[in-house]
Amino acid sequence: MKSCMHLLLCFLLLIKTTTSQSIIKTLPGYPGPLPFKLETGYISVGAEDEIELFYYFIESERDPETDPLLFWHTGGPGCSGLSGLLIEIGPLAFDLESFDGSFPSLVINPYSWTKIASIIFIDSPIGTGFSYSNKSNAYLSCDTKSANANYLFLRKWLLKHPKFLKNRLYVAGDSYGGKIATMVALEIAKGNEAGLQPRMLLQGYIIGNSRTGNEDSNERIPYAHRMALISDEYFELAKSGCHGEYVNSDPNNYKCQYALELIRECTKLINDIHILEPRCRYMSPRPNDILSGQLFLEDDPLDLLVLSRKDKPWCRNHNYVPIYVWANNETVQEALHIKKGTITSWTRCNMTIVYMNMAYKEDVKSIFRHHQLLNEKGYQALAYSGDHDMYVPYLSTLKWIRALNLTVDDKWRPWYVGGQVAGYTEKYKNYNQAFITFATVKGAGHIAPEYKPKECLAMIDRWLSLFPL
Amino acid sequence: MKSCMHLLLCFLLLIKTTTSQSIIKTLPGYPGPLPFKLETGYISVGAEDEIELFYYFIESERDPETDPLLFWHTGGPGCSGLSGLLIEIGPLAFDLESFDGSFPSLVINPYSWTKIASIIFIDSPIGTGFSYSNKSNAYLSCDTKSANANYLFLRKWLLKHPKFLKNRLYVAGDSYGGKIATMVALEIAKGNEAGLQPRMLLQGYIIGNSRTGNEDSNERIPYAHRMALISDEYFELAKSGCHGEYVNSDPNNYKCQYALELIRECTKLINDIHILEPRCRYMSPRPNDILSGQLFLEDDPLDLLVLSRKDKPWCRNHNYVPIYVWANNETVQEALHIKKGTITSWTRCNMTIVYMNMAYKEDVKSIFRHHQLLNEKGYQALAYSGDHDMYVPYLSTLKWIRALNLTVDDKWRPWYVGGQVAGYTEKYKNYNQAFITFATVKGAGHIAPEYKPKECLAMIDRWLSLFPL
Repeated sequence: MKSCMHLLLCFLLLIKTTTSQSIIKTLPGYPGPLPFKLETGYISVGAEDEIELFYYFIESERDPETDPLLFWHTGGPGCSGLSGLLIEIGPLAFDLESFDGSFPSLVINPYSWTKIASIIFIDSPIGTGFSYSNKSNAYLSCDTKSANANYLFLRKWLLKHPKFLKNRLYVAGDSYGGKIATMVALEIAKGNEAGLQPRMLLQGYIIGNSRTGNEDSNERIPYAHRMALISDEYFELAKSGCHGEYVNSDPNNYKCQYALELIRECTKLINDIHILEPRCRYMSPRPNDILSGQLFLEDDPLDLLVLSRKDKPWCRNHNYVPIYVWANNETVQEALHIKKGTITSWTRCNMTIVYMNMAYKEDVKSIFRHHQLLNEKGYQALAYSGDHDMYVPYLSTLKWIRALNLTVDDKWRPWYVGGQVAGYTEKYKNYNQAFITFATVKGAGHIAPEYKPKECLAMIDRWLSLFPL
Repeated sequence: MKSCMHLLLCFLLLIKTTTSQSIIKTLPGYPGPLPFKLETGYISVGAEDEIELFYYFIESERDPETDPLLFWHTGGPGCSGLSGLLIEIGPLAFDLESFDGSFPSLVINPYSWTKIASIIFIDSPIGTGFSYSNKSNAYLSCDTKSANANYLFLRKWLLKHPKFLKNRLYVAGDSYGGKIATMVALEIAKGNEAGLQPRMLLQGYIIGNSRTGNEDSNERIPYAHRMALISDEYFELAKSGCHGEYVNSDPNNYKCQYALELIRECTKLINDIHILEPRCRYMSPRPNDILSGQLFLEDDPLDLLVLSRKDKPWCRNHNYVPIYVWANNETVQEALHIKKGTITSWTRCNMTIVYMNMAYKEDVKSIFRHHQLLNEKGYQALAYSGDHDMYVPYLSTLKWIRALNLTVDDKWRPWYVGGQVAGYTEKYKNYNQAFITFATVKGAGHIAPEYKPKECLAMIDRWLSLFPL
């Protein structure tokens, strides 16, 4: 009877779904046929199927039959899966050398994670990338809704791609996407336990400089101290004055507020997503943006196009200009099979949903408990951190891992790529042999594969192959 | 009677001196006449004038009459002044883009410190660069001899260039050169007090990632901890096991030795002169060099010429290949007025004198007392540190400054270049208004101007102009 119910549920899932999917053989900007298998499509989710989530699926270039399946969540919230694909870990990248502001060229990324895994990139939550809804109230979202929607998306996607049901599955993501990925992993675990169909071969999750919650911000001060941005004195003042609580500090505690003000003065012009790179906002023609200080992914396309002129100093945000030109091009949208009239203008990271209309609420304040549950249930985790990121510093990640009170299985040591130290790693396990691998990526910022693509591919390859880093 | 004695001494200094000096109008590799005034020459020092110290003098490109005079000491010990001139802070640099292993081209360094100061670069101690002696036992040297020799050199140089006697004088240098510069500054101060002639207008000294003594190495462990190279656990283990003494640790203290061994494993393949750059030795065709682990300036010219092939990964040491080709070229040596037959082969850093023949002894174990005396005597100091150097970490510099127990005059704050944070600074003063300015250079390695030339010129310009950084 139970399994009949499940079959019925599967059937209902499928008939309710107004999915579309297309195999993309060529893309504007890339010469010749694509040397990998790309599929795009929409899958409808929500109580009334009112939300159309767009995705990009790329089969592993090695052996899609046996290689793992990754379900990738780009950060933000509000950053498109296309950004993950073209700027982080996908098989194509922009030819930045030749880019002059006109239509950009695409080249092969030799360090694509699709060399070793099949990856679904999703435009989520609703309002991100090419995802859309015809109902305006569908745009009201939050962590819980977003994670639920992504889980439902994946169930429907797997029902339409049943051959991937036998592949090892990992939920993955970085920055805010790491938070959602962790929540989705727990949804899957619970769904499997409840016997929901299809049953997924979830192995674990992979997160990079991932948001845990508000507590991340607390570690920015010890991090700034370690990285020589604030003095021993200021750090001691803050520690004793604020009793270690910097985010929700008491506004009437003047000793604490004074220390925090000294620290703010020291760090306010630091590029917190990579402390050694220039802070682009202050090279911008519109430095007094009303959102100043709120955005961490500061790519305003208008500013960027001005910024990318050759006579301006280099700024990482220049790298983000081609994706705006490309994704807003009509022939590109046709090639990707974007439904006409669904999106007025594509943005890499839709900050409007988060900051302007406040359409997205961070309703889950911390996912510490999610990590704990996943670990208790026996799932594996890889938590990596670009060590030059102050936005979500590696100290935040270490903090929640250590709070789990696990046993150290492989002590802190360097990991190597090409004979060089690529970072440091430590491996933890619970009574149940569920492992958490922590790894720093030396010299990398917030989105580690953007800075250290070769090292990150080696890391993920070893970890997915169950080798030590 | 006293002043007669001084005049006599001056006279003796001059007649004993077998100096040579030449104005250089053109240099091989640079098209057309040099757009600055370059003089090279030898000045003989030592009890019997047996040591010929070679120098390069460049007049300030702004106003040599009023701009300060810098007496620059390159590190090592054993690194040539030519390296300071062509790779660090001088008006010419190699065109690395066009270098293909044949004769290199020279280009203008827009961030030369000679834009704002006249600089003497010295090949010191004996055995360095083009300095030489006809007596083999003259090559036996040490800190004290080297500092004495450099002071004598400067007295003789100023007597031959009396118009610079009215310029503000600063002794300067980085790495080991910072140690010698500090010692020379104290020699000058004492010489002035003793009425030695010529009286020098010493204002203070400028040192970068400067060696203080053995205590520098002790700070590498806290630094490695801060920079995420070792874990909190290892650091705590070392602190409690070794009681904070890591350099001269007790070999029978197994708890300490165990912690140090864990730390050594974590950091042994880190490039300690810039922790984010590749460790070149391990890309070398001769990785098992007998000197492995001893050299910090790892440029073996034979290895480098192999390394500089385009198909090899980038390595900063590639930048050091052109100077070997250039300085060993016969027409270059003629242009520089090098005496024929005095040098068999020019090396950027003569490690032989330090490590192979042990010709150079570090007889002054710490210059903390020198700093203290200079501060008490009222001289100004700028102590800057590339903050990504583990060889002499900024923590070493902060340690001796703080041990002086001075008053903080300008609290820790960022300093800016082009609207970006270029580093952090703190200014200390004594009862006598003698200032010590500490500054980090954000993202720079051991030789800060090599990594951050624009920022370092701005720093030195402001400091020499008595402006806040």
